[in-house]
Amino acid sequence: MLILGLDPGSSRTGYGLIESGGGRLRALTYGVFQPPRDTPFLERLPHLARQLEDLLRQARPDAAAAEDIFLARNTRVALKLGHVRGAALLPLLTQGIPVHEYAARLVKKSVTGFGGAEKEQVRRMVRMLLNLRDEIPILDASDALAVAICHAHAGPGLPGAGAARA
Amino acid sequence: MLILGLDPGSSRTGYGLIESGGGRLRALTYGVFQPPRDTPFLERLPHLARQLEDLLRQARPDAAAAEDIFLARNTRVALKLGHVRGAALLPLLTQGIPVHEYAARLVKKSVTGFGGAEKEQVRRMVRMLLNLRDEIPILDASDALAVAICHAHAGPGLPGAGAARA
Repeated sequence: MLILGLDPGSSRTGYGLIESGGGRLRALTYGVFQPPRDTPFLERLPHLARQLEDLLRQARPDAAAAEDIFLARNTRVALKLGHVRGAALLPLLTQGIPVHEYAARLVKKSVTGFGGAEKEQVRRMVRMLLNLRDEIPILDASDALAVAICHAHAGPGLPGAGAARA
Repeated sequence: MLILGLDPGSSRTGYGLIESGGGRLRALTYGVFQPPRDTPFLERLPHLARQLEDLLRQARPDAAAAEDIFLARNTRVALKLGHVRGAALLPLLTQGIPVHEYAARLVKKSVTGFGGAEKEQVRRMVRMLLNLRDEIPILDASDALAVAICHAHAGPGLPGAGAARA
């Protein structure tokens, strides 16, 4: 089963594609989508969608997972993040790829055993769980891999099923 | 020049397509995109995008206009609205249709002469400016027509140009 984890952010969006099967997890690809720095905000949306569609053409995931965001610093930040998240999820939803959302605490707990873990701890555990030789260079990418792992652990048909919701 | 006005909202999205030329404005079509009431939130996004793409296939607007939202009741509402707005604008941006944003006060001023006008006044003036025989049934549709009219008044190449920004 191929699972795409996404961590949409207003300046860049982390992604991580993992394969889950036979009780093993394997990272296929991960990184960040990031438009050139001076790209106007609205232009960032089709840029992100295009990059995501390229990835979907290369590997069609069976499911996608993202953190269920409902907090933000203020309404302006929330509006921006909402735009990006909408643009990131739309290509998946349009192609009928189910999107599962998980609370941040559940993602951290699923990966480190502790819901209050720091991003750095999450990164270390993601690297261990996926047997990655190299350090994951960008936190957004390790967060994306983390939510994909969370879905592999908690998703439908696996122990802990029920936490996922479309 | 064909101008598509949009008023994205979390339960429904108003749209209004107008033709502007020779100092005259004409409404071509208007209404709301609204998924069935029990549609889960994320499923509303591709539903909206599909309806918008159908409209774009029927009539390719030269430009689109939407209110520049930066206020919301709280961050949760802002996040939802951001998702919807991102999903509404993405098909336009992907197809290279320029999207112009206008402050709510400017839209009201452009249509009624008064930046603090009520929605009902906006509706009456939109009907007059577009010579519509019938009442516009839904406020979201008249708000969408209003922002399209605002772009016709203030847009590039017309008196008042410069207010628009991509």
